[in-house]
Amino acid sequence: MQIDVLTLFPEMFAPLTQSLIGKAVEDGLLDLNLINFRQYTHDKHQHVDDTPYGGGAGMLLKPDPLFEAMDAVNAQDSGPKRVILLDPAGKQFNQAAADDLAHEQHLVFICGHYEGYDERIRTLVTDEFSLGDFVLTGGEIASMAMIDATARLVPGVLGNSVSPETDSFQNGLLEYPQYTRPAEYRGMRVPEVLQNGNHQLINRWRLKESLRRTYLRRPDLLTGLTLSTEAQKLLREVRGEEATKQAAARLQASDDTHDDVHPEV
Amino acid sequence: MQIDVLTLFPEMFAPLTQSLIGKAVEDGLLDLNLINFRQYTHDKHQHVDDTPYGGGAGMLLKPDPLFEAMDAVNAQDSGPKRVILLDPAGKQFNQAAADDLAHEQHLVFICGHYEGYDERIRTLVTDEFSLGDFVLTGGEIASMAMIDATARLVPGVLGNSVSPETDSFQNGLLEYPQYTRPAEYRGMRVPEVLQNGNHQLINRWRLKESLRRTYLRRPDLLTGLTLSTEAQKLLREVRGEEATKQAAARLQASDDTHDDVHPEV
Repeated sequence: MQIDVLTLFPEMFAPLTQSLIGKAVEDGLLDLNLINFRQYTHDKHQHVDDTPYGGGAGMLLKPDPLFEAMDAVNAQDSGPKRVILLDPAGKQFNQAAADDLAHEQHLVFICGHYEGYDERIRTLVTDEFSLGDFVLTGGEIASMAMIDATARLVPGVLGNSVSPETDSFQNGLLEYPQYTRPAEYRGMRVPEVLQNGNHQLINRWRLKESLRRTYLRRPDLLTGLTLSTEAQKLLREVRGEEATKQAAARLQASDDTHDDVHPEV
Repeated sequence: MQIDVLTLFPEMFAPLTQSLIGKAVEDGLLDLNLINFRQYTHDKHQHVDDTPYGGGAGMLLKPDPLFEAMDAVNAQDSGPKRVILLDPAGKQFNQAAADDLAHEQHLVFICGHYEGYDERIRTLVTDEFSLGDFVLTGGEIASMAMIDATARLVPGVLGNSVSPETDSFQNGLLEYPQYTRPAEYRGMRVPEVLQNGNHQLINRWRLKESLRRTYLRRPDLLTGLTLSTEAQKLLREVRGEEATKQAAARLQASDDTHDDVHPEV
């Protein structure tokens, strides 16, 4: 997969040259090109931005350097490509989008500018994405997140160390709690079931705790899933257990209120 | 504001030392400490991970190095702090969360590990956040995004160049289209209204196009807003115009189908 990044801050992408993505570049699985589009300016001061028509604060990215940078990208590879703009008005990036992009041969990321850009730049792009409903100082960190999430799904990138299929979101449930040594740390013990070597019990516990965490934190993820008969039974158990816990917590809270009213008793 | 980051890859945070956040650190507005918690291991090979209880692929972060790293953070500053874990099961990070964190004196970010971590580590934290429903190879890029979104709201960090209040999401609407020179580029012209200097018309156009973009792309953002009488009138105009456009597009599509059926006509 070829990934071109059009940015004013190519040095910000150093994190991608480390970790698993850097290894994939070394191994030839990814071809990552950081292109500073300031090189496509023609004035002495290499201005990439200018004041907005109609007035207002801030400077906007001019259209011409980015159009010329895309001309250069297209001259090198005339094949199909996805051109991605990071923008708060874009579609919410998610795992399905990462899966979709991971099947492409060539991705181009255009990193915006914290003060905005000329509207005509949008005509260059095939996809507009947002990481979420929050504002960043630029598109660089958001692009890195998207490249990381996408590139790790390219076959071979993760190696044998871990399979993307066992991740959260890939099976639709949140991950069960995991434990490693020591068996007891600062008074907290690893659950007995994980230490007794009975893999049927371990798998049942893990499925149940995955269901519990999803039920408590992201019940929306459960609605779209087709659960096995065993999973449905475990989910009923979880619901009963959590209802009992909540009732107990309410009872405790009303006892505490009573204590507060008569602290001297 | 003090920000501590507990990570195995402190060198990945180089992007934060550039751009606006780097300037805020230089100016003394932010105190950013990158702490490699591998220094809190006690074995010769400095192992930070171990195999999971109950079996399974991958290695998990051990509890002890992170607990000891937090002991050191707490020894330096015993005051209140928010300790944030990046986890797919966490709350979705958003602008309200950034606003909330921007009011704190001391934040600690714990960067996970792509293969998982011991469950007991969660007892160290006050907040679990997720950037969104996608999987990253580690917590570092997600932490950078959260630090960037949060730190830019700390008074003084953005300087005078731009105000966070004019951003997308801060007024509840998506941003209107913006243009800079040249007035015409590759056949695309800047709208006349922005060039004629009538600020009443310009403000009206901008509000209307902000409403249009929000209506077309993120209608969910409109439901929670209290709109002025003028904005309500403009939104009605936008709805009418877009309905007309859609009807014209449907007509065009049925013409095109007709052409396809009789291509020789």
